[in-house]
Amino acid sequence: MTTIDELFATLRRRGVLWPSAEIYGGIQGLYDYGPVGTAIKRRIEEAWTEWMVRASDDFYLIEPAELLPEPVVRASGHLENFTDPEVSCADCHTAYRADTLLETARPEGVDGLAPAEIGRLVQEAGVRCPRCGARHWTVPRPFNLMFSVDFGATGDETAYLRPETAQSSYLAFARMWDVGRHALPLGIAVIGRAYRNEIAPRQVLFRSRAFTQAELQIFFDPADYPAPLESVADERLPMVRADRRAAGDLTPVGATPAELVAAGELPAFYAYHLARSYRFYRDVLGYPAERIRLYEKSATERAFYNRIQFDVEVDLASLGGFREVGAVHYRGDYDLTRHGEGSKKDLSVARPDGRRVVPHVLEITFGVDRNLWALADLDLQTEGERTVWRLPPYLAPIAGGVFPLLRKEHGEAARRIWRSLRAAGIPVEYHETGSVGKRYARMDEIGAPWCITVDHETLAEGPLHGTVTLRERDSRTQERLALAPLEARLRASLRPPTP
Amino acid sequence: MTTIDELFATLRRRGVLWPSAEIYGGIQGLYDYGPVGTAIKRRIEEAWTEWMVRASDDFYLIEPAELLPEPVVRASGHLENFTDPEVSCADCHTAYRADTLLETARPEGVDGLAPAEIGRLVQEAGVRCPRCGARHWTVPRPFNLMFSVDFGATGDETAYLRPETAQSSYLAFARMWDVGRHALPLGIAVIGRAYRNEIAPRQVLFRSRAFTQAELQIFFDPADYPAPLESVADERLPMVRADRRAAGDLTPVGATPAELVAAGELPAFYAYHLARSYRFYRDVLGYPAERIRLYEKSATERAFYNRIQFDVEVDLASLGGFREVGAVHYRGDYDLTRHGEGSKKDLSVARPDGRRVVPHVLEITFGVDRNLWALADLDLQTEGERTVWRLPPYLAPIAGGVFPLLRKEHGEAARRIWRSLRAAGIPVEYHETGSVGKRYARMDEIGAPWCITVDHETLAEGPLHGTVTLRERDSRTQERLALAPLEARLRASLRPPTP
Repeated sequence: MTTIDELFATLRRRGVLWPSAEIYGGIQGLYDYGPVGTAIKRRIEEAWTEWMVRASDDFYLIEPAELLPEPVVRASGHLENFTDPEVSCADCHTAYRADTLLETARPEGVDGLAPAEIGRLVQEAGVRCPRCGARHWTVPRPFNLMFSVDFGATGDETAYLRPETAQSSYLAFARMWDVGRHALPLGIAVIGRAYRNEIAPRQVLFRSRAFTQAELQIFFDPADYPAPLESVADERLPMVRADRRAAGDLTPVGATPAELVAAGELPAFYAYHLARSYRFYRDVLGYPAERIRLYEKSATERAFYNRIQFDVEVDLASLGGFREVGAVHYRGDYDLTRHGEGSKKDLSVARPDGRRVVPHVLEITFGVDRNLWALADLDLQTEGERTVWRLPPYLAPIAGGVFPLLRKEHGEAARRIWRSLRAAGIPVEYHETGSVGKRYARMDEIGAPWCITVDHETLAEGPLHGTVTLRERDSRTQERLALAPLEARLRASLRPPTP
Repeated sequence: MTTIDELFATLRRRGVLWPSAEIYGGIQGLYDYGPVGTAIKRRIEEAWTEWMVRASDDFYLIEPAELLPEPVVRASGHLENFTDPEVSCADCHTAYRADTLLETARPEGVDGLAPAEIGRLVQEAGVRCPRCGARHWTVPRPFNLMFSVDFGATGDETAYLRPETAQSSYLAFARMWDVGRHALPLGIAVIGRAYRNEIAPRQVLFRSRAFTQAELQIFFDPADYPAPLESVADERLPMVRADRRAAGDLTPVGATPAELVAAGELPAFYAYHLARSYRFYRDVLGYPAERIRLYEKSATERAFYNRIQFDVEVDLASLGGFREVGAVHYRGDYDLTRHGEGSKKDLSVARPDGRRVVPHVLEITFGVDRNLWALADLDLQTEGERTVWRLPPYLAPIAGGVFPLLRKEHGEAARRIWRSLRAAGIPVEYHETGSVGKRYARMDEIGAPWCITVDHETLAEGPLHGTVTLRERDSRTQERLALAPLEARLRASLRPPTP
């Protein structure tokens, strides 16, 4: 798999993912997950929850509504600032993002430039309309990326589809504080849809108009947030620092959290969570270490309220290089301060020593769809005739298949074993048609790690007492096992790693 | 718990559920789930998937986008017909649903009446505005319940937040057919948000503006859909038939699927799935049989494309009687015919005998939020000082808590056991503060079925070898168990029933 089109065609053909409302010609920037995609997506979400949320007694997963009333997005700044510079072809009226048009002429982007200045750059660069070839452009205007919704029966209220799940956690902070232990840190996680009216959606899951974010907002007292740095002490983080980047050097430099903290470059809480995040991508999602980098955003590149920002980037062949799949943002007290003003509620909390503080926020954000794409890009491999999706077993859509070697002779026993595994909570399918080789191939393609074949040796002792052949996807090794150790082996492989 | 306000206050105070954007005064008809609510909601969704989807090799769960392009809702009929009759107070301009205003004066509703006729009824009944007391009303108008969204950069496209998840499954049929086995029946399930701009949202989760549906659409050939009636042969279904209801009789009459089919009253496939659905509410959600009824909608009450419709209703104290929590709809070939016309794609499929058929649809719909509310209404009980949420164990937010009897003496051992259970995939929390009685009470309130107490007897054999006290929530019985049988016991209790 090299190009994005090839990979998408493969995923579409296999029913992993396809354009939404496909029979109507699609709707730009929206996608549907088929059965295999849905199952993998849920496994990713589960693994993220296990690593990021359940790892701490102070972190909680909630499920808030996706619509936000207008005062919320006014306070958060999205109503005013959540824009992209839009420019239209004066001839064919197609709309584009100015920074996308300027991608080759001005790789550093247009952040911070005024519309008139961007317009001048587009003209100067002599950009032609990708659709009709003309070079007459409208003056760029800021285009708000939020989808607005007429809300209520009178039609005079406006709500917005949330542009990020984070706002839902900020809104929930006061209630979560009230019902909780009145202690910081307090982590509030949301996994759910966010929506952006991208001017020009592209690259399938990398710039779509509806996407799933998994975000953890950690509310903390900056004067009192001890981080167990020793648990990540040995980790060398592959960082691309903003200052070295400005000097033209994109080589990641390994540094340990302890070194970064000792040098005063990062606060301990930030270094700790950055290291834990890095481990998630490497040890849970299984991305090769050399394909991950932590890309620091400079003060001009990051949102003004972000005090520190490292994007987690992964090197993907289908997208031609490193792309953002997650990030760690230190947002300071911006969010609760703004929502305190917007709602006229005091969102400060009392600390044990009597101080009142507006909690600061460390945000760990994770693009579920983008990482599903990354798992396809990195792990879906063709080897001659054979296609194998080398997903970590706990991210596979199912554990595997149970097959009778011969349908008539071994079918009944195989079905009993299949039912017994399902009753034990192991997600397995039963397949009896086609050669065993073909049934192996079908499991390989969807990334199912295990194939269980039932034959005459199984019957010798009675189906729930005899042995079966267990075949592993990647090594293709086979071994004979009795049912009890089989169940234990499968179960262990399905548990995502915990920190 | 009797009133809806009391029950909602309890759930809010405990952080199960609260109004969305609460610090801003809320946004009408939207709610956020807190940690306990989120966990229970996911367990319900998991139990539904296990029973409804995984029970068959022909059924699949997918995750489509929530936004639909305009041609889709034009073809489905929602653009034209998905309306409620809205009437406004001419004095204070508050909008109401005409049928709600007429609820006491005309309990049979206003289905099928023209706006002018509804207007006459409102005037005749002398209804006063619930807000300002006036009795001057505007002429009712049909109000479309879909939220429309300006889609795309030019602002001349319109998309709609889906009013039901069902449409997403109809759109996916062709792709699912192509990638699948080319066989009917084919079931496509979706669990996800649907949105309705209710004129007057009320009754918390029973009429909100965003809600989660779990819906299974079974596409089938009406000439060839054998149903294993023998597997539900003994089931007496508590049916309230439309004809008896018209005669004033609301008493459920028990009838078995076989009787109904033999008498020509229901097709076998319908009787079978109605019986399976009934079992889901009774055996999986655990609703008392006498509180469930299957309420037939008459030809004038149901949507014109529904050939048969039984709502599943459950008797809830907080809502003053029986309320709909799910339904089984036989929709004929309406959906694929309409979308075939709308998309200009041939959605008929070839059958083994050479016929081409437009598949018919049997829809099994389930309101996740409404059923979560029902579980609170029925199972959250106060007994003197004690509050217990008697959830079926597999629907509980967590399995339970691990407690050291004495923090200093038994804390380390308890933490080891807690970690070992978590590593085995059993969701347990560790709590060491407060008396054991208080820790029991906290678990009872959230419905966690098990409390595990670690004491000096545990230590005698070493923490992973000694015994612990296992206390069961409902019976409050206690027994001593070693760790291996403990893990097996907990695990078994967490598996939702399979058919």
